[in-house]
Order: sequence, then structure tokens, then C-alpha cells
Amino acid sequence: MKIRRSERLVDMTHYLLEHPHTLIPLPFFAERYSSAKSSISEDLGIIKKTFQERNKGILETVPGAAGGVRFIPDMTVEQAEEVIMTLCDRLSEKDRLLPGGYVYLSDLLGEPELLRQVGQIIASKYKNEKIDAVMTVATKGVPIAQAVSYHLNVPFVIVRRDSKITEGSTVSVNYVSGSSERIEKMELSKRSLKRGSRVLVVDDFMKGGGTVNGMKALIEEFESELVGITVFAESTFSGRRMIESYQSLLCVKDVDVSTKTITVVPGTYFN
Amino acid sequence: MKIRRSERLVDMTHYLLEHPHTLIPLPFFAERYSSAKSSISEDLGIIKKTFQERNKGILETVPGAAGGVRFIPDMTVEQAEEVIMTLCDRLSEKDRLLPGGYVYLSDLLGEPELLRQVGQIIASKYKNEKIDAVMTVATKGVPIAQAVSYHLNVPFVIVRRDSKITEGSTVSVNYVSGSSERIEKMELSKRSLKRGSRVLVVDDFMKGGGTVNGMKALIEEFESELVGITVFAESTFSGRRMIESYQSLLCVKDVDVSTKTITVVPGTYFN
Repeated sequence: MKIRRSERLVDMTHYLLEHPHTLIPLPFFAERYSSAKSSISEDLGIIKKTFQERNKGILETVPGAAGGVRFIPDMTVEQAEEVIMTLCDRLSEKDRLLPGGYVYLSDLLGEPELLRQVGQIIASKYKNEKIDAVMTVATKGVPIAQAVSYHLNVPFVIVRRDSKITEGSTVSVNYVSGSSERIEKMELSKRSLKRGSRVLVVDDFMKGGGTVNGMKALIEEFESELVGITVFAESTFSGRRMIESYQSLLCVKDVDVSTKTITVVPGTYFN
Repeated sequence: MKIRRSERLVDMTHYLLEHPHTLIPLPFFAERYSSAKSSISEDLGIIKKTFQERNKGILETVPGAAGGVRFIPDMTVEQAEEVIMTLCDRLSEKDRLLPGGYVYLSDLLGEPELLRQVGQIIASKYKNEKIDAVMTVATKGVPIAQAVSYHLNVPFVIVRRDSKITEGSTVSVNYVSGSSERIEKMELSKRSLKRGSRVLVVDDFMKGGGTVNGMKALIEEFESELVGITVFAESTFSGRRMIESYQSLLCVKDVDVSTKTITVVPGTYFN
């Protein structure tokens, strides 16, 4: 049965969104809808134009026999800024202040809509990089890693601070916790990352950069390459930061326990 | 500027998929595309029909002044079975066997495509239930919880076995670890779950059911209600299981360390 254009457009949009960063050969769609390749090309032109006009991402056409189309999630700087400004407001909410000047984040990191947006923002930054895996440390970094992984369509791996029998053999590194200057240990299951992988590191919060530095050392142990570091939020840090090159979506600039004020500004993401 | 039907269909499909389980009033689309409500209704009819024919979910129409449309992700039993059969094969891979007869799962729980499908399968089961939050325990349950949360469009909360200063005040419970019969402790940040919530519990693996039982106790402490329990995989358990009513996608039926054989069959999900 031949499928009408309108139905093809709905189904193709659905299919492309569920398969980001995946090359889909034109014959796949032609067969799926029993339609001529020329019709499919026209459909894809409409989808490409709509995505572009509404800033929903890029539909990349790869010519040639081994070609096809690839949907690349993307966000404009304006769209990202809008999300980040909203996040600044939410992170400054008075009742997030915890004893010791810590800021409560866990509720935000459990909101699907927010995670979808944060994942899109970070994935957009790395859309043209070859990335094999997203790495984070348990537990609070996991939602960020998973959200980015969805939009880049690459697996994520979880570094742990505690040993678990269900992880099999691991590789571990010691690292200096930046804020407390203690020596700690983190490990990653040996089979979770292939040698020579290009790795994007994400985390929920960065203070001294010790944790991120540990992940950097771990990537070296796996003879892999660090592509970039992006954290959801950083706090201003008076000491010398262990990491120089990173991006943050948000920056907790100041915490005043007496007036219960948290001052949050956009991070280095747009620099 | 008036938008053509083809472009509306692409953008509406995109919008609906990014906002599952959300009631969207028709005037929202009419304004977005400067189009008549009657045209929007026709568009939605096409989308509904396509989703239905291709088993991509339900487009529910809510009539009346406060009405609109709602996209409900759904999967047929056949689609779910296909995914689960593939998972059975992958989980039976010889090299997953760890010392002590444990099965290595972490790589699967880091694959975005697999998580998307698992999230859809579990969310489909609860599509008609009122659910306020998805609950899991750190660390390996998090990817499952987040995937389900995406498709149900409700937040997820993470129960922890260790205390963290960044969680604020917590409520804790003691529970009997089913397999080892030890008394352990788990806790949840007080502000992460409202009293009277309807909670869906998910986890990566269930043996004796002790962990899940702990979460059940925690839900009671929050004066909330347990809607259901779904685990990614369970193992056959010789003792008396602490949980009676649950669903599993997969069941590790037998592990033979001498021949390195893992026997995996579909779980109780289809019963």
C-alpha cells in the first residue's frame, strides 16, 4: 500500500527524532513507505526546512551510494540562553540553601523536561565532534550523562567511588578532592570503555575540579582521549582550580547563609 | 505568515513527541501556525491515524473548552516482545558472567537506544495510571527510572544507601537485604517527594526483593502510595521473596559457572 505524503512526514519525523546522529539510507524510507526515492527526497526537503526554520536541529544529507540523511539535534544560542536564564532563577530559590552553604539540586536533576533541554544544550556544543562515550561519576552526574547520551546517540559510562561486585574487573585511580584536599579513589568497569575512545565528561557540580580531574586520569588509564568537559553548575572557587578547560551551564557566584541568598549567573558555556 | 500543512505536520509531530502526557490546547497550535482551528483539527487527525497505524502511541483528544490533545507513548505487546527477545539474547552472552555468578549489565544500562525502548515498554504498562513520581535506588536503577520518567513525563527520585550533605534532610528506613539477610539502610531527601504521591518503583535487578521492599517502606514513610513495581531483570530465587506483586522484563533463570552459560527468558511482564 502506498502511503500518503502527510503520513510519511509524520512517521519520518518520528523516526528521525528517535534516531539522532544516525545515518539512515534513503532506500530504508523508500521501502518503509513503498514510495519512490524522489518522493522521499522531497519529504526530507520539507522536514529539513521545517527543522531549520523552527530551530529544531539539522537534517544533514550525505550524498552518494553509501549516503542518506542524519538528524543532528541542535539548539540556537538564543534558545540555550533562554533555558539557562530560567535555570538561574530556579537555582537561586532561597529554600535550596542547605547547611554548609550547599545548594540543593536533586529535584532539578529528576525533571524530564529540564533534562531533555540540558541534554540538548550540551549535545549541541559537541554536535560536530566525534564522540564515542559520555562519562560521569555516580550518582548525581548520571541524569546529565544520560540526557546528553540520548541526543548524541552514544553510550554513557558511570565511574563509581565504591566497589561493586556487579561491575567485574575495574581500573581505579586516586585523585585529590579539590575542596577538601583528601585523597580519594574512583573506578570504572574495565569492559565499559574501549581503548582509544573519545570521551565527553559531564557532571552535575564542580567546585575544585578534583572529581573531574580524577575522570581525566581515568580516561588516560583507558588510553582514551578527553574531548571536553561540561558541568551543569560550578561554584566560584577561591583556591587554584585543577581543571582549566571546561564549560559550565550555570555558576553559583555567591551564597549568603545569613540572608539566605544564592546568586546564580550563566556559566562559561557562552564564552 | 501562514504555514503549510506539511510543515505543520512535521513541527506538530516534533512538539508532541517532546511533550508526552501533556495536554496541549488546540489554540496553542492555531496560534503557533497562524492557522484556523479546523485545519489544526485535520492535522491532528492525520497524526493520530499515523501514530495508530504504525503503533507509535496514542493521540488522545480531550473535548470541551479546557480540552486539547495529549500524546501518550505506547507500544504493542508484539513490539515489546520483540525488544525483550533481543534483550534475552544479549543478556545470555557468555562474557557477561562475573565471579560469584553475577551478570554484567552496566553496558546495557548505558545504551541510549535500549533505554529508550525499555522506558517505552514500562511507561506503556502504566499509561492509564495516575503517577506522580518514579522511584529508584542509586546507582544502576537511575537509567531505568530516567527513561521511564521521559515517557511518562513525571519526575524521578533517587533513593540512596549513603548519606550526602547535598541532599539536605532525609527520611531513612532500615531494610533486610533479601539475599544476604543483612540489615541495611536507605534514605531519600525529604524535599524530593510530596506527601500523597502515587509512586512507580523501578530497578535494574531484583533477587530477594529486599531493596524493593525497602523502597516500599520508604513510600509509606512519605505517606505516599505504591502504584507498581517493574524491574529490568530478576533472577530466580530459592528463598521466599519479600515482594509478591511486581513485573520483570527479563528473568535470569539459570547461571552455570562451569559451562559459562546464562539462561535468560522473558520475565513476568506479559503474564
